Amino acid sequence: MPVTYVEVKREDCQKYANCEQAAHCMVYSRLPDMKFLETYELKAAVLMQMRFDGHVGFPGGLIEDGEEPIHGLIREMDEEINFLPQKDEVNEISHVGSYWNSSEKILLHFYALEVSQSRIREIERKALEAHDYGGEVMGTFRVPLYTMHDGVRGFPTFLKNSFIGNACQELKAGLLHAAILSKEEIGAAEAVVISSSKLS
Amino acid sequence: MPVTYVEVKREDCQKYANCEQAAHCMVYSRLPDMKFLETYELKAAVLMQMRFDGHVGFPGGLIEDGEEPIHGLIREMDEEINFLPQKDEVNEISHVGSYWNSSEKILLHFYALEVSQSRIREIERKALEAHDYGGEVMGTFRVPLYTMHDGVRGFPTFLKNSFIGNACQELKAGLLHAAILSKEEIGAAEAVVISSSKLS
Repeated sequence: MPVTYVEVKREDCQKYANCEQAAHCMVYSRLPDMKFLETYELKAAVLMQMRFDGHVGFPGGLIEDGEEPIHGLIREMDEEINFLPQKDEVNEISHVGSYWNSSEKILLHFYALEVSQSRIREIERKALEAHDYGGEVMGTFRVPLYTMHDGVRGFPTFLKNSFIGNACQELKAGLLHAAILSKEEIGAAEAVVISSSKLS
Repeated sequence: MPVTYVEVKREDCQKYANCEQAAHCMVYSRLPDMKFLETYELKAAVLMQMRFDGHVGFPGGLIEDGEEPIHGLIREMDEEINFLPQKDEVNEISHVGSYWNSSEKILLHFYALEVSQSRIREIERKALEAHDYGGEVMGTFRVPLYTMHDGVRGFPTFLKNSFIGNACQELKAGLLHAAILSKEEIGAAEAVVISSSKLS
């Protein structure tokens, strides 16, 4: 049975204070009016990464004892992608959701941070000089967010990659939170993934 | 039924001269004595990319009419990752294999190019300034080449991502050609992928 992650309300997170916790962040920049092949709206540059373990995931990691989730997240982003958000830039407004995995007994916090187009390019460049580059992080890339005319390639195909933990769930929650994709667009892509996995 | 690609001997490629052709390249640098977590041998930095369509693949692309496969490959590498190999650097010795897909009627040529550690870092940096970056190519990353102690994470997990065409077959052929992984190591990783896909 696949591991499931149950969303926990922010006010209930305190109950899990003694459990293992992790925090990850979707860094993104809107790309309005930009199209691929003059057809497909790019919508946004949303950063994800290839991890040491062969899974796709977001920058972030385990929170240390006594550390606030946001502080742990900032420490991990510095190590993994060499990006130190400005003071208070990642805050409760950036919080997308928290998810409890009862079998692994870990609470996962997920944030989304919007930056400018010039800043996302700087983040991509600086990520190559990160402490963890070539070790924990094997590379950073953008997520294709359109669905191509065949109804499959693009975002639905991307969702079929190997994600770590609930990173796929977090990606969809983050895109909805940032109003980059609608509930209907995400649901349509999920339906393509389900129907293609039944065929294989 | 999954599409299959049949290896074609170099001397037989001429028979397919009038068919559609494509060429791709595995750019890599050996990383001897470098370990992740002081345990797992990195072996090499092997570059792959996240594509516009959500698949994982190698730089390269379709050969134009009248173009030699190597020349088309060099043109595509310049467009996609902003890397122009030196004259004659990609040659018949770099040729790993050619593969025929009878249903799509396309012949795929695959090459491997070894570069120094400092040059691969330069290629990674320059790739962010490529013409196709953010469009056809969403990012470049390295392939994890070790198998972690659980027997699954690392290279076997990486092989479960969504590859374009026969890029997974090409990756394995390239790693064998460059003597980065042995036939036994590749076979062991494939066995993990098969057994986990039966479970799901």
